[in-house]
Amino acid sequence: MTLSSSILNGDRLSLARLLTQVENDLPEGRASLAELFPHTGRAHLIGVTGAPGTGKSSLVNQLTLYYRKQEDKRVAIVAVDPSSPFTGGAVLGDRVRMRDLAGDAGVFIRSMASRGSLGGLAQATAGIVQVFDAAGYDVVMIETVGAGQSEVDIAKLAHTTIVVEAPGLGDDIQAIKAGILEIADILVINKADRPGVENTEKSLKSMLDMAHPVRHVFQHHGKMEAVEVPSAPVYNSWIPPIQRTISTEGMGIAEVADAIARHLAHLRESGDWTARERARLEVELEALLQDALVDRFRAAFPQKQYDEIVESVVGRNISPWEAVTMLMSGRLK
Amino acid sequence: MTLSSSILNGDRLSLARLLTQVENDLPEGRASLAELFPHTGRAHLIGVTGAPGTGKSSLVNQLTLYYRKQEDKRVAIVAVDPSSPFTGGAVLGDRVRMRDLAGDAGVFIRSMASRGSLGGLAQATAGIVQVFDAAGYDVVMIETVGAGQSEVDIAKLAHTTIVVEAPGLGDDIQAIKAGILEIADILVINKADRPGVENTEKSLKSMLDMAHPVRHVFQHHGKMEAVEVPSAPVYNSWIPPIQRTISTEGMGIAEVADAIARHLAHLRESGDWTARERARLEVELEALLQDALVDRFRAAFPQKQYDEIVESVVGRNISPWEAVTMLMSGRLK
Repeated sequence: MTLSSSILNGDRLSLARLLTQVENDLPEGRASLAELFPHTGRAHLIGVTGAPGTGKSSLVNQLTLYYRKQEDKRVAIVAVDPSSPFTGGAVLGDRVRMRDLAGDAGVFIRSMASRGSLGGLAQATAGIVQVFDAAGYDVVMIETVGAGQSEVDIAKLAHTTIVVEAPGLGDDIQAIKAGILEIADILVINKADRPGVENTEKSLKSMLDMAHPVRHVFQHHGKMEAVEVPSAPVYNSWIPPIQRTISTEGMGIAEVADAIARHLAHLRESGDWTARERARLEVELEALLQDALVDRFRAAFPQKQYDEIVESVVGRNISPWEAVTMLMSGRLK
Repeated sequence: MTLSSSILNGDRLSLARLLTQVENDLPEGRASLAELFPHTGRAHLIGVTGAPGTGKSSLVNQLTLYYRKQEDKRVAIVAVDPSSPFTGGAVLGDRVRMRDLAGDAGVFIRSMASRGSLGGLAQATAGIVQVFDAAGYDVVMIETVGAGQSEVDIAKLAHTTIVVEAPGLGDDIQAIKAGILEIADILVINKADRPGVENTEKSLKSMLDMAHPVRHVFQHHGKMEAVEVPSAPVYNSWIPPIQRTISTEGMGIAEVADAIARHLAHLRESGDWTARERARLEVELEALLQDALVDRFRAAFPQKQYDEIVESVVGRNISPWEAVTMLMSGRLK
C-alpha cells in the first residue's frame, strides 16, 4: 500500500511520515502530495494570528476542544513560528497543548519553524495543510506567532482569518492593528477580564468603522476591491464581528465558533470560497513555477561562470541588474 | 544632468525622487540604481529590530542625534513596517521623528510599508539602502517593526543588527527572543528604568550563554558555522554585548554607539564585512534573476493556455506539481 493510500485510510503514522517529507521538501513527499491533491478542497482552513502575548495558542486549543465535543469534527493544528529561523519554536504553547489534547485520535498537531526563507515556509505550510485536508480533517487551524508580513502571507492560506488581540499590550501595538485588521474576518479580544478591555474594543470598533464605512467590500485574496455604496442594503458583504473571550476559562469560545460558522456560510453564499481557493492555488502554482524555472536555469548555466558574474558584482564592476541581463542573454564568455 | 549625478552631488530632491521610483520598482529607477551601484559599499548598514513596544524608533532617533552631534556622520533612516500591507504605516514613530530630526540636512528619513509580498519589500528596501549608500550617507539605519521572519530577512541586509528588548512585555515574548537572538550582534534593553529589567537581562544572558558556550562563532549571513573550541583564546569571534538604555532620556546611547563601533572594527578585522557583502549581493542577484525568469516565461507562454491549466488545478483535475511539469515541458495543447 502506498503512503498516500494509507493516509486516505486514516493511518496516523503514515500521515506523520508524509508531513515530515513535505516539511523537508523531499521528492517522495511531492509525489504523495500530487496523489492526494484530488482529495483536497473540503477542509475549512482557519488562520489564527495576532501579536505575542494575546493567548492565541490557548484560544486554538479551546476551539479545538469545542469542535471535538460539540460538533465531533476532526481538527488539525498547524502551529507556525516564523520568528524562530534556527532553533525551532512554539515549544511553550506545545506543552500546554499536549496536556489538553493528547490522546485524542481526532486531533493532530504539527509545529513548524521557519527554514531560512519565508517563501519556503509559506510553501511548506501550504503542503502540510493540503495533507491534512486530504486526510479528511474537517477543520485545519493555522496558527502563527507574531503579526508581520509573514503572518499576512500565511493568513492568505486560510478561508477564515481570526485576529486575536488582548488589552494592555503596549503602544506600538496600535500601529500593528491597522495593518493586520484588514486581513481579519473575525476579531477576538482575548484575556477580556484584563483592565483596558473597553478601550481595546472601542479602538477596534473605530478602526473597523474606518475600514468598512457602509461599504460593500468584496475581499478576494491578495487584493481588496471596495465599492462605495453609501446607503444600499448590504448584501454579499461581511463586517468582521468582535468577540470577547477568556480562553483559559473557556469563556466566549462557543460564540467564536458560531462566528466562524457564519463566516463559512457567507463564503459559500457569496462565492468567496471559490474565489479564495482559486487565488490560493494560483499563488502556489506561481511559487512552484518560479522554483522550477530557477532550478532549470541554474542546472544549465555553468557554475564557474555564474561565480565569476557574482564576483564582478561584489567587486562593484557590474550592477546586479547588468548581471541579470548578462545571465539571461546567455552571454557566456 | 541625470538623476543619479544630481544625487551624487548631494541634491535631496533628486534623492527623494529616486527613492520613490525604486520603491515603486519603476524601470527608470532601476536604470539610475545601476548607474549608482559602483558608488555603493561604503555605508555602515545598521539593522534595528525587536518586538512592538520596545521603543525602537526612539532608540534610532537618539542614535541618529548622537552620530550627528558627536561624530558628524550623515545618517539615513529606513523605517520598514511589514505589518502594514495595505495602509502604509510607522506613522506614530514618524511624528516623533519629525520633531527631533526635522531640518537637519545631514539626516534623511524614509518610511516604507509592505507592498503585497515580503519578497517585494525586501527587494525594495535593498534598493533604497543602495541609493542612500551611493548618496554618501555614512550610516544607514534599517528599522523594522515586529520580530517575525520578515524582520530576520530584512536584518540580513545589515552589517550590524541590533535587537531591542524591554522589560515586562509579556509571556510569549520569551519564545520570540530565542529565534531573534541568533541574528543579534548587539542587544539593547531599552526602557531600563522599568521594573523587571534585572530579570530581562538575566534571561538574555542565559540565552546568550546557551547560544555562545565558549565557542568560536563565524557568523556568515544566511548560515551559521560554530566550531566548538572549549578553552582556546577567542580570536575572530563576537559575543553580542548587552546594553541598557533609556532612550527617551538619552541614557546609554553613547555606549550603544561604542558597541556599534567595536562591531564594525570586528567586521573589518575578521573579514566578515566582505563575507556579509558577498552573501547579500548573491541573494539580491538570485531574487532579480528569479523575477526575470518568471517574466520571460510568462511573456512567452500563451495567457489563455496558462489560465486553462490554472482552471484544471482549481478543479482538482491536475495537481500544482503536474501543472508545473506541463508548463515547463511546453506541452501547449
